[in-house]
Amino acid sequence: MNFLKIIEKKRDGKKLKEDEIKFFVTNVVQNRIPDYQISAFLMASFINGLSKDETFYLTKWMIETGKKIDLSDIKGPKIDKHSTGGVGDKISIILLPIVSNFGIKIPMIAGRALGHTGGTIDKLESIDGFKTNLKIKDFKRIIKKVGFSIISQTQEIAPCDKILYSLRDATATIESIPLITASIMSKKLSEGIEGLVLDVKVGKGAFMKEKERAEELAEEMVWIGKKFKVKTIAILTDMNSPLGRYVGNSLEIYESIKFLEGEDIDDLKEITFSLGSYMLLISKKAKNFEEGYKMMEKEWKEGKGILKLKEFVKEQGGDVSIFKNPEKLKEASYYEYIKSEKDGYVEEIDAYKIGICARELGAGRFKKEDKIIKNAGIIIYKKEGEKINKGDIILRIQTEDKQKLLNAYEIAKNSFKIGEKIKKRKLILEKI
Amino acid sequence: MNFLKIIEKKRDGKKLKEDEIKFFVTNVVQNRIPDYQISAFLMASFINGLSKDETFYLTKWMIETGKKIDLSDIKGPKIDKHSTGGVGDKISIILLPIVSNFGIKIPMIAGRALGHTGGTIDKLESIDGFKTNLKIKDFKRIIKKVGFSIISQTQEIAPCDKILYSLRDATATIESIPLITASIMSKKLSEGIEGLVLDVKVGKGAFMKEKERAEELAEEMVWIGKKFKVKTIAILTDMNSPLGRYVGNSLEIYESIKFLEGEDIDDLKEITFSLGSYMLLISKKAKNFEEGYKMMEKEWKEGKGILKLKEFVKEQGGDVSIFKNPEKLKEASYYEYIKSEKDGYVEEIDAYKIGICARELGAGRFKKEDKIIKNAGIIIYKKEGEKINKGDIILRIQTEDKQKLLNAYEIAKNSFKIGEKIKKRKLILEKI
Repeated sequence: MNFLKIIEKKRDGKKLKEDEIKFFVTNVVQNRIPDYQISAFLMASFINGLSKDETFYLTKWMIETGKKIDLSDIKGPKIDKHSTGGVGDKISIILLPIVSNFGIKIPMIAGRALGHTGGTIDKLESIDGFKTNLKIKDFKRIIKKVGFSIISQTQEIAPCDKILYSLRDATATIESIPLITASIMSKKLSEGIEGLVLDVKVGKGAFMKEKERAEELAEEMVWIGKKFKVKTIAILTDMNSPLGRYVGNSLEIYESIKFLEGEDIDDLKEITFSLGSYMLLISKKAKNFEEGYKMMEKEWKEGKGILKLKEFVKEQGGDVSIFKNPEKLKEASYYEYIKSEKDGYVEEIDAYKIGICARELGAGRFKKEDKIIKNAGIIIYKKEGEKINKGDIILRIQTEDKQKLLNAYEIAKNSFKIGEKIKKRKLILEKI
Repeated sequence: MNFLKIIEKKRDGKKLKEDEIKFFVTNVVQNRIPDYQISAFLMASFINGLSKDETFYLTKWMIETGKKIDLSDIKGPKIDKHSTGGVGDKISIILLPIVSNFGIKIPMIAGRALGHTGGTIDKLESIDGFKTNLKIKDFKRIIKKVGFSIISQTQEIAPCDKILYSLRDATATIESIPLITASIMSKKLSEGIEGLVLDVKVGKGAFMKEKERAEELAEEMVWIGKKFKVKTIAILTDMNSPLGRYVGNSLEIYESIKFLEGEDIDDLKEITFSLGSYMLLISKKAKNFEEGYKMMEKEWKEGKGILKLKEFVKEQGGDVSIFKNPEKLKEASYYEYIKSEKDGYVEEIDAYKIGICARELGAGRFKKEDKIIKNAGIIIYKKEGEKINKGDIILRIQTEDKQKLLNAYEIAKNSFKIGEKIKKRKLILEKI
């Protein structure tokens, strides 16, 4: 077989056969296709698209050319959750400690901050000592003991994705639904799970700005999950405004602790309990969505989640003194308050602008090599819909770098609108 | 400016502005854009196309980032001819020695064998001692003295094309009309010419198989030429069957000598004299096409062409003993005759199959590093439309490598059809 012929077919919008996709993936993994040929193929796939079958074969061979985790010796349903990325999205960190109490086992391989969005791995690593690059055997030991574990992407699982992803990033071919689907699903389906709940974000702070595109992505991922006989559910959730009141790595750990200790944070609660309910439904622990939601709520109120989180942090080597004194997670050498210049209501807090502001402060990366500033980020004093008076604080921005604080200040000032009272936005838009 | 944004625009089918194309070309030439980004851009340009204006800017900056030859100190109209490539196409080698007798100066930068097609440079280099990598000052000296010179592509002229071409070749993005146009025209328009006659080949042995595509390419090149104020004419010529009776490097030099010595070879004559006539028309040496054609014919009959060719070969260092004894150009250590198995007429000689057969024999290259076998090639004993009897020789294949002869034999056997008498094909299809 000849890769040039395969590029040519995709260039002309023809459908590739399984053996052609297999040829592509196996040769990419073996470093036998030069970058410039891979990127020509990716661009042709981006523009002309991949059919559902092609996406299935791509996902399949991305899994087959890597290691699959065998969780057959762990009791209980193995269910994972994945989010397509947002701002202030600390849901994994509060969801897993609650839902794991019902005997569900969650083997989560999570990502890092990407563009304007945060990453679960960076958030967890803001806890001193916390390790995310565990060996598979330690990963499994912790899942068995705690009920869940969260690790970063390894070299062994779906190695093709790493190669394709870095080229897509450099060639403007990220936002392709089939390529996103294969990237996400190849990693998730290598985890040895039986069920998967997907949180597909829509809106300003999401990668998918339009509902139609998000729906398309959700449908494609659910279709792929089912082809692999993994029970898959997707929900579309609003990502126009940041989730919760804290954006930034250690700040989000702080808010996660507060939430699990019982503090009621509307948006976090609704999305977390909904996702948890679907996980309970998939694993037959709940009869219907309402029952699952109530089970999540009850467990949270009883405070079992915070104990699980502490156990998890301890098992992965993290400093558990944060649970005694979470306030230290909020401290920073440099900070600035942004106040409202008029009376009114918070009409908008733009998740995208908050996301790029957080990155500017040091919570994310511009280049792969950039170092994260753990406590850099934003505290939102007033959320969308709340009343505000002239002079009231709306945001606090903080970091360890004076210059970064200065750079971020203007972005922060332009990230919100004070105006009329607005109707509460629906958080859960659709279930697929 | 950011190249990723430029890729993104082209990916989405948007039009690029001149400064964006300038940014692309200048950075390619300075090796500041990685191959994988260039190839993603080329694929996006291939699929979504480039507008006429974009093609003009691309051509312009490919010229501007290289050296332009200044021929202002050479008297007479500077006119060039270019062919898009075919099989048995030795027209430059017979056209230039005739047309230059009228005071037209031809500064030709020519190409090498590509795929199944031959290349003027490889043909000339089959003459012992012949040099094609001349310095610009020697190129100009020979043009002044002889009236024309033919050299190979230099590093200095349109250097962007070399980079783009090798990537296009490796990423299935060759056959794009705007990219072909920019590639050809950037080189030709760097020659310092005032007029250009294009021979756009159509048919089995051409890169453009369909007339509509060839027309589109011809129109685009003529439009670009005119934008640069270079008088440009294109003719579409048939390339279903090889030109002349000889295919292969030294074999085509042999046929060129024979033609210039007065041997009447129908198809070569018609196309050569037509192209020459247009060159005379453009340079106002002829009043109309018919007059130009007759001028060419007269000069050929008087034998001035053969003297010019000899002078040219001598000036470029070639062995002029071939003019005394051209028969030695036909000799080869290994050869095979292919005979007709039935009575009838030659219904078809497939130029593409003859082309790949010639390459298999060693007249062309599979990889850039491959060495050409000078005398490898095919002699066509019976051309399309000729009567043939069972047992008559139709082809002779020859080379210096026994294995290659064996490999080529089956291809040669399948390259023709014996059948019914056919109508003579029109050679000149259209003028644009």
